[in-house]
Amino acid sequence: MTDPAVSTAPTASDPVPSERLIGDLPRRTPREAAELIPERATLLVSGFGGVGYPKLVPEALAAGDPRELTVVSGGGVGDEIDRDLVESGDMRRRYPFVPNEHAREAVNEGRVQFHDRHISRLADEVRFGGIREGMVGERVAVVEAVAVGPDWLIPSTSIGHAPAYVETADRVIVEMNRAQPLELARVHDVHVRADPPNREPIPLSDPLDETDGPAIRFDAGKLAAVVKTDRADDPYEFREPSAVDETIAENLRSFLEVEIGRNPMLASAVNLQFGVGSLGNALMGALADIEFGDRDVAYVGEVVQDGLLDMLDAGDLRGASATSLALSAEGQERFFENVAEYAADVVLRPADISNAPELIDRFGVVGVNSAVEVDLYGNVNATHIRGTHIVNGIGGGGDFSRNCRLGIIALPSTAVDGDVSRIVPVTSHVDHTEHDASVVVTEHGVADLRGKSPRERSAALTAVADPSFQDDLRAYRERAGEGGNTPHDLGSAHSWQ
Amino acid sequence: MTDPAVSTAPTASDPVPSERLIGDLPRRTPREAAELIPERATLLVSGFGGVGYPKLVPEALAAGDPRELTVVSGGGVGDEIDRDLVESGDMRRRYPFVPNEHAREAVNEGRVQFHDRHISRLADEVRFGGIREGMVGERVAVVEAVAVGPDWLIPSTSIGHAPAYVETADRVIVEMNRAQPLELARVHDVHVRADPPNREPIPLSDPLDETDGPAIRFDAGKLAAVVKTDRADDPYEFREPSAVDETIAENLRSFLEVEIGRNPMLASAVNLQFGVGSLGNALMGALADIEFGDRDVAYVGEVVQDGLLDMLDAGDLRGASATSLALSAEGQERFFENVAEYAADVVLRPADISNAPELIDRFGVVGVNSAVEVDLYGNVNATHIRGTHIVNGIGGGGDFSRNCRLGIIALPSTAVDGDVSRIVPVTSHVDHTEHDASVVVTEHGVADLRGKSPRERSAALTAVADPSFQDDLRAYRERAGEGGNTPHDLGSAHSWQ
Repeated sequence: MTDPAVSTAPTASDPVPSERLIGDLPRRTPREAAELIPERATLLVSGFGGVGYPKLVPEALAAGDPRELTVVSGGGVGDEIDRDLVESGDMRRRYPFVPNEHAREAVNEGRVQFHDRHISRLADEVRFGGIREGMVGERVAVVEAVAVGPDWLIPSTSIGHAPAYVETADRVIVEMNRAQPLELARVHDVHVRADPPNREPIPLSDPLDETDGPAIRFDAGKLAAVVKTDRADDPYEFREPSAVDETIAENLRSFLEVEIGRNPMLASAVNLQFGVGSLGNALMGALADIEFGDRDVAYVGEVVQDGLLDMLDAGDLRGASATSLALSAEGQERFFENVAEYAADVVLRPADISNAPELIDRFGVVGVNSAVEVDLYGNVNATHIRGTHIVNGIGGGGDFSRNCRLGIIALPSTAVDGDVSRIVPVTSHVDHTEHDASVVVTEHGVADLRGKSPRERSAALTAVADPSFQDDLRAYRERAGEGGNTPHDLGSAHSWQ
Repeated sequence: MTDPAVSTAPTASDPVPSERLIGDLPRRTPREAAELIPERATLLVSGFGGVGYPKLVPEALAAGDPRELTVVSGGGVGDEIDRDLVESGDMRRRYPFVPNEHAREAVNEGRVQFHDRHISRLADEVRFGGIREGMVGERVAVVEAVAVGPDWLIPSTSIGHAPAYVETADRVIVEMNRAQPLELARVHDVHVRADPPNREPIPLSDPLDETDGPAIRFDAGKLAAVVKTDRADDPYEFREPSAVDETIAENLRSFLEVEIGRNPMLASAVNLQFGVGSLGNALMGALADIEFGDRDVAYVGEVVQDGLLDMLDAGDLRGASATSLALSAEGQERFFENVAEYAADVVLRPADISNAPELIDRFGVVGVNSAVEVDLYGNVNATHIRGTHIVNGIGGGGDFSRNCRLGIIALPSTAVDGDVSRIVPVTSHVDHTEHDASVVVTEHGVADLRGKSPRERSAALTAVADPSFQDDLRAYRERAGEGGNTPHDLGSAHSWQ
């Protein structure tokens, strides 16, 4: 890496560069950049929460010669990657997340080999062989930026694992996107850890601390192409909260108000995380109604969704730490018009920092995540319909559920217009084990599982199932009998899926 | 807490006190001490790996008036707790581990309410309501020590969660055990973290660093009784390694030698953890045959078992960090005769430090744990026979499998004299998800799952199953078809259990 002392890279004290392109850069068209990528390669792309991903180079790749590509992102990306490269047949492997319907369909049909990975670990997995089977051919990082120099770049609306990908790559291709405000540099804090076993503690004593400035640095020799673009992100669309969402939010609010009053860990400050998606967004929005008293409240998660902006505007939230501005088009517009003001309270970090088990523990995060289904003993399926068809992938849910001090699963009690119970005898897949879900909230109430034995858990969870399924759940529990710490009737266990 | 400046507590620089009983202490008989415990109480006891647990007070409790007790230990303890208090009917609830056959039977029959919890989190769970349902009545810590003063004690052969238990307790009862060498003070490093959200990073830059000395400190007013004893631990008995154990060890050795040569994280140092038990002990013993080159090798786990002592004696191991000397009777004798020498290389820590996700990540630990069964997609059942009957509990397996950089599951391919395959279509319980098992080793080979899609995983895992079950596994895979990222035939999924 170039000596930081002679680099032109912006720093924490002076984060916004004077121009978007600084120094002698290898300017290329999207097609020229795509042609630099060999026939067999691993594309390490920026993007998380559907924003901040490269657009023109993947599109040019899909239109070009056939390739065999592994595509590794931080999280969700747009159609130029997860539709176009699938339809062209170039994408052979994909990690770690597939919210896009085109890529998801290809994964579920076996046309693309996929494995969902914990977000917090992906940076190290790319560095140390954790997805060895998929790391094929040359490693090319393709990263969207708001500014770039010979040995640095500043990410756009998300950071994800771009720092690790740029570090691991043989070559780096940058899409400099003028549709993303240069002022986003004020939001980023790119801390990169040393490798184990010489890794140091993450130097944050408060979830909103900033230490390193906005630049992702790299060896100048790696920069293969800089492509200009002004194509906007294709971000999430959130549906309006349903009546069920609002009842879940109300139950969560009641629970949190009681818990805040009795849990010594929450006496002076509350650090909250919410999972990605429309329910998560609705729950974030409901935060504004909670009586936090004089406690400091911060969002310590992986994505800033629209639901948080109102609280930030009202001063109800001290700030937010995340890795992505996973906003709707309107949310993005609102943020972009006031980047400097929001930047005072919002910090984006690399995803291995935003989701670090070490920090989730240190700050006593209360984690709220959703699920496909929960079983009578508190095992949580967050990814697979009927055990087979993947929805999005585990994402950061396991990082927070496993490491937070209070893990809450919030979900509607039914799916498919009430025809299917989401409280089931046995989940068809397990993403978060019975050890990691402390509290389950549905529109029918709150099951506080903390310290309960499996027998006691089954009663508490039956009580928050939809009333139309409670008799069936009790019948399963009777068939299971009293043998063992965790009674089951395995013969009929999966008859619900 | 008493001002440390005026306490008589031993320090890191002067760890061994001149006497075992220092100051004006409330000396009691076991029966007198037991009578201090109210009818309804939560007993927070020392003990981990079957050693360092209190003996006389639980025995006296079992012989005394009826009680309703919750018993929370760090890990495994002896018969005075897990047999006598079960048979007396006093134990109503138990956390987090039941290797003892008497307690386990009561749990599986529903006479004792039990939930297994991650070892790393139990200290915080006791502090912050994580096992709320079980924390009944007065909280009484009962801790075995080698020395005690008015506001401190030095633990004996294990630390477990004694620091958190003493901190949380309303009253503290100490069993000062003369059968445990006073020199064990040299082995202990009792670092206690501040509570979230003001928790600081754990101040270790090397897995063998020592910072705080051997004393567990507490408010002098809490010390209710000091009981003298000289009863020895009732430690583990290890069986001799079987031929299958030795073949698994050989396959693990071959894999690690290749991995060490290609994984940049392991270029200069290798930090290894092995799970508790006879197979773990056999695998530790096999470490001596691995070609580590000039790498520093350390054990970074939760228990020091006999298998490590040979390597320490031969200088093949730089040292060991753990929370328990889970040695056999012979191993204990060997250690006790040379405590001062072993203390130079061995450090015991509180279990929330030995198993801290933060440190497992920081030091790049390679974790090797065993299991009951593994399914075709890499989900791991470590605790439940046929999904219902608990064996020991998850213990620290989830701490290491989830947070280590390379998670290895080592297990025989069959159980019940070859009648039952441990590689199954679907596990009947999940303790470590498909995201956390990177490599599976049996006596038939090594399945390297890293980066493989579920379809590819099923082929790799079938290849390390016992040959007599491979056709059946392939038949299941055919019935499951090609629908979904993780094909299953849920109707026949549990026909193997």
